[in-house]
Amino acid sequence: MAVTDGHSYDVDGKLRERAKKVIPNGMYGHQSVARLPEGYPQFFSHGEGSHVWDADGNEYIDWMCAYGPIVLGHRHPAVERAAAAQAARGDCFTGPTERIVDLAELLTSVTPHDWAWFAKNGTDATTYAIMVARVHTGRRGLMRARGAYHGASPFWMPGPAGPEDAAHQFFYRYNDLESVRAAADEAAEDLAAIIVSPFRHDAGHAQEMPTPEFVQGCRDICDATGAVLVLDDVRAGFRLDLRGSWAPYGVLPDLSAYSKAIANGYALAGVCGVEALREAAGKIFATGSFWFSGVAMAAAVATITTMEETNGVGSMERVGTMLREGLAYQAKQNGLNVTQSGPVQLPFLSFDADDLENRDIPRALLFTSEAVKHGVYFHPTHNWFLSAAHTQEDVEKTLAVTGRAFKTVRDTYGAA
Amino acid sequence: MAVTDGHSYDVDGKLRERAKKVIPNGMYGHQSVARLPEGYPQFFSHGEGSHVWDADGNEYIDWMCAYGPIVLGHRHPAVERAAAAQAARGDCFTGPTERIVDLAELLTSVTPHDWAWFAKNGTDATTYAIMVARVHTGRRGLMRARGAYHGASPFWMPGPAGPEDAAHQFFYRYNDLESVRAAADEAAEDLAAIIVSPFRHDAGHAQEMPTPEFVQGCRDICDATGAVLVLDDVRAGFRLDLRGSWAPYGVLPDLSAYSKAIANGYALAGVCGVEALREAAGKIFATGSFWFSGVAMAAAVATITTMEETNGVGSMERVGTMLREGLAYQAKQNGLNVTQSGPVQLPFLSFDADDLENRDIPRALLFTSEAVKHGVYFHPTHNWFLSAAHTQEDVEKTLAVTGRAFKTVRDTYGAA
Repeated sequence: MAVTDGHSYDVDGKLRERAKKVIPNGMYGHQSVARLPEGYPQFFSHGEGSHVWDADGNEYIDWMCAYGPIVLGHRHPAVERAAAAQAARGDCFTGPTERIVDLAELLTSVTPHDWAWFAKNGTDATTYAIMVARVHTGRRGLMRARGAYHGASPFWMPGPAGPEDAAHQFFYRYNDLESVRAAADEAAEDLAAIIVSPFRHDAGHAQEMPTPEFVQGCRDICDATGAVLVLDDVRAGFRLDLRGSWAPYGVLPDLSAYSKAIANGYALAGVCGVEALREAAGKIFATGSFWFSGVAMAAAVATITTMEETNGVGSMERVGTMLREGLAYQAKQNGLNVTQSGPVQLPFLSFDADDLENRDIPRALLFTSEAVKHGVYFHPTHNWFLSAAHTQEDVEKTLAVTGRAFKTVRDTYGAA
Repeated sequence: MAVTDGHSYDVDGKLRERAKKVIPNGMYGHQSVARLPEGYPQFFSHGEGSHVWDADGNEYIDWMCAYGPIVLGHRHPAVERAAAAQAARGDCFTGPTERIVDLAELLTSVTPHDWAWFAKNGTDATTYAIMVARVHTGRRGLMRARGAYHGASPFWMPGPAGPEDAAHQFFYRYNDLESVRAAADEAAEDLAAIIVSPFRHDAGHAQEMPTPEFVQGCRDICDATGAVLVLDDVRAGFRLDLRGSWAPYGVLPDLSAYSKAIANGYALAGVCGVEALREAAGKIFATGSFWFSGVAMAAAVATITTMEETNGVGSMERVGTMLREGLAYQAKQNGLNVTQSGPVQLPFLSFDADDLENRDIPRALLFTSEAVKHGVYFHPTHNWFLSAAHTQEDVEKTLAVTGRAFKTVRDTYGAA
């Protein structure tokens, strides 16, 4: 599994031409590479463990993991076995399979929550969580951090119909407890829910871990007002702590929204909640044609069980720390000031001399472009994701590439 | 494959007990059997072709097809082969696979549309279609039929936050062109879109085919006002006409929303549109973690290709006609007045002496309960679905059961 140089992108180019004719802009959503620099392939062919191959057969060490879903590595044997066993019986029926009970039991034993509910998109999960909070409280107000991503539907991103799509929303600043208090005052007696990410992972920003005061403050405000604390663990779930990403802070959210890594790439989302919200949850009609399908649930059971049995989180911490330390050393050697932010399992690197907030990021674009052209897949503006399949060898091969990429940045833009 | 009598539901009962502890109400959404009569299992074990088995091993002729997704029969070899071939390479990456181009090309060749876009839920597709219409027109008004189902999110069903969730909506009555004109007048210069189902298939009602005047009238009003005609083909798509369900009327919608049957049970949804809307479609950011995954797209290509090559629609028409004629004969023999409504590929049967609108339906509940207890899975209030795997033998076995079920209805409630 050599990291390859001399990539060619002929097949990718032909696929892009075909796609342009039949897909608006040739691609859409977060997987369009239109804003990424030279060297990023649009189309992938296959994956195995921590490595992926693009449509031209170029190989990459995959530090994005499909933007999160791949947490055990591509085609993990235990997950594939569980999925195949269910697929041999069938997937989608006029009712769920036993797998939904297995998975709900597993999640309510691994997390401190009491019940579980499943859907397909992370957006389904965050949206349902807010509906549960509103039904439970009989109130409407939703507090969310300005700039935080909780889904891409009109409910979360005011669409072309205007602000009614996102009515009754109040904004606070992440990690700014005063702003949380101010938003709660604004929502006043109509406050139904505070939704919060386990750490600040807005794309296009350095990441930011929450202060213990912020975490506890969100909990306290909900306790004082009767509002529901919703942890949006869609992006970080199953990478930081299997009990839930705020478990290390000793804070239990009332509802946790999951998706992405829950089934190692199989399409699934879920909400888990505390006993007090069970009745409200049972009053909501939300559904989807594929929400009860068995294969993704079998994959989720295998994913979570394997993560638990093999200490997948610990493995990501160990390898992620090696990567972080190696990158820090190399940047320093090249006289480049970089910020590595977020947990090592969901790392991000930015150049202090770039202007990330205004997306004026020549260093990051050159660095990631050089990396991807030599088989190391990072992202210039979105946090990266480790999987439990990443190894010390992956880090060493990565550092062999990034050492040269940092030097190119320094040679081009100077030390800063 | 005998249709079994003497069902036991021990395993199902135990699963329900377990589910009650870890899932609100024990189950949720359209796949909860809480409102269905005696004899309906909650949990399924496996399926093959037109037959399914519940968790206790009881066998059913499956006339619901997972509420639509299964259009070629469970575990269709060509679909499973295509899905397995992609799964062996991987499913979910940091970019799409070649399969998305294959599928977009296939859909734009099978339908008269010019571009395609993919997601996971039918609700994703209908919601995106309205966003495209709103961006294209710069207007907000959405016209929809009162009582029609287009999704189960707050966007489509005003949630607990109140009417703002569904702002700028105007209602017409299906098949009532005057009411469409009135709603268009009400929306006036703010009319962005009319969304319409290819026929009236609201749950809890007899189905109703559209009149040619209604179909053409919807098109004409859009043409006159510049509004976008959105065909919600999520439920009926790929069962009536592969070109789109209004193709037989000679009417082309501007946007068509698909899901359910598109990939024979694999989770996928899509929107196809005309050239004039491509630019607006390209301006919308909507995305999901699993929307680009290759396996469901490979399954969709195989599903649509197989439907085309084997004339799956024709097969469903032939078998569906046999079923309809057989049921009509049996009802008449028993002196029971029934209404069979909708296309034979998505049939529905109601008893005229029942009061379906008010869900006072003792005959339908007894009939479907008797049927399901003897291995024939119908639904008392929701339309049924045929697959291309259903055979004349399935119809004959079904009629052997329904003959007795009709007799039980007559013996219990009398001829009427």
